[in-house]
Amino acid sequence: MNLIYKGKAKELYTAGEPNLVLIKHTNRATAGNGLKLETFEEKGQINLEISQLIFYYLAKNNIKTHYIKQHDSVTQLCYMCDLIPLEVIIRNYASGSMAKKMGLENGTPLSKAIFELSYKNDELQDPFINDDYATALNIISEADLEIIKTIAHTINNLLVKLFKECNITLVDFKIEFGKNKDGEIMLIDEITPDCMRLWDKETNEKLDKDLFRLNEGELIKGYKEVLKRLKCTIV
Amino acid sequence: MNLIYKGKAKELYTAGEPNLVLIKHTNRATAGNGLKLETFEEKGQINLEISQLIFYYLAKNNIKTHYIKQHDSVTQLCYMCDLIPLEVIIRNYASGSMAKKMGLENGTPLSKAIFELSYKNDELQDPFINDDYATALNIISEADLEIIKTIAHTINNLLVKLFKECNITLVDFKIEFGKNKDGEIMLIDEITPDCMRLWDKETNEKLDKDLFRLNEGELIKGYKEVLKRLKCTIV
Repeated sequence: MNLIYKGKAKELYTAGEPNLVLIKHTNRATAGNGLKLETFEEKGQINLEISQLIFYYLAKNNIKTHYIKQHDSVTQLCYMCDLIPLEVIIRNYASGSMAKKMGLENGTPLSKAIFELSYKNDELQDPFINDDYATALNIISEADLEIIKTIAHTINNLLVKLFKECNITLVDFKIEFGKNKDGEIMLIDEITPDCMRLWDKETNEKLDKDLFRLNEGELIKGYKEVLKRLKCTIV
Repeated sequence: MNLIYKGKAKELYTAGEPNLVLIKHTNRATAGNGLKLETFEEKGQINLEISQLIFYYLAKNNIKTHYIKQHDSVTQLCYMCDLIPLEVIIRNYASGSMAKKMGLENGTPLSKAIFELSYKNDELQDPFINDDYATALNIISEADLEIIKTIAHTINNLLVKLFKECNITLVDFKIEFGKNKDGEIMLIDEITPDCMRLWDKETNEKLDKDLFRLNEGELIKGYKEVLKRLKCTIV
């Protein structure tokens, strides 16, 4: 088990076979492009469980993902994929930097779900781009972009439905895609409260990384609540 | 002739009829969202002539524009339109803030022309948005967005051809659209070196507002050169 890549909150390790990879969820939380950093006991394990439940649910609904099985309490076995260097963001409500940029109140509903791209590049601080930037700069082909757009909206519809059953509003989320050895596009990375905005439907209480990002409450308490509700809904 | 609106470099005046407007090109030049400001003798007149030649050329090629006729040396008579609050940018080469943001060298060719939108809002400093922002926030309908996208690319093809004949590279440009009293979408505003990047094809010498923005040479000399070459080509 050799380290391949150390991300902000996850680590990738070899898994003995070239087309497999082990992904470890660490206890680290970062915000502001890594400027704010803290460690939370149990975070890795909770995130692994949440991500696994969601990937299981999506796979059951015909979304192709890199996930194979759990390896240990914080590590999962996945297919090794070539990363498409785009962060795909879907927004159902205006929030965070987007709300600020557009002069909107946090939580303003959108007349349709927004599909948004950032160019995954640490040095450039993952700049917000539009679809034409991605294709004109050969970050992705037009055909592949159409495919990930369709999958992203399908995932959004599935997740909105799932979280509604958990009495949670899915405000927005970030996902990533890659290609397996056969060139198939699949959902990779994670889906956890680290990369979603989740608000309790009754109280609008935050249950995601904004608790840490904005110092608005106990991160682990929020994440545990999300896991508890997902378990009741999915299992 | 009463002032309706004072922009950074242009002023709008009443023209006696509610569906007409007088647009005055002033001698002002601004950069950095108005933070840098200077006055250049003759600029208004040169810009009026350039914009007029280009609008004449575009109209001849079936692009609908607000332009009717010249009123005096710095003022033109136009149809009054409701502004669509979007800045439409077309890029043929990476340049300026876009090149910096993407870590590209100034002048890097793009594999296709990029269509880009900014939300026209002084208070928010005209933020860069994507197509979904524009439609999901009801800034423009999806149908109208498709129309202006098609017109913008047509204008780009026409302008690239025109400037090629002037031995000038059209790096990028910004245009605006509005709707006349019948709801027809038309090209409004101006097309001048204030809102284009124009490089001499042989020397790569700048002939546009970057001369002022970056203190790289005499603004009026560049603008006069553009006008001279356009006159030879169009008239």
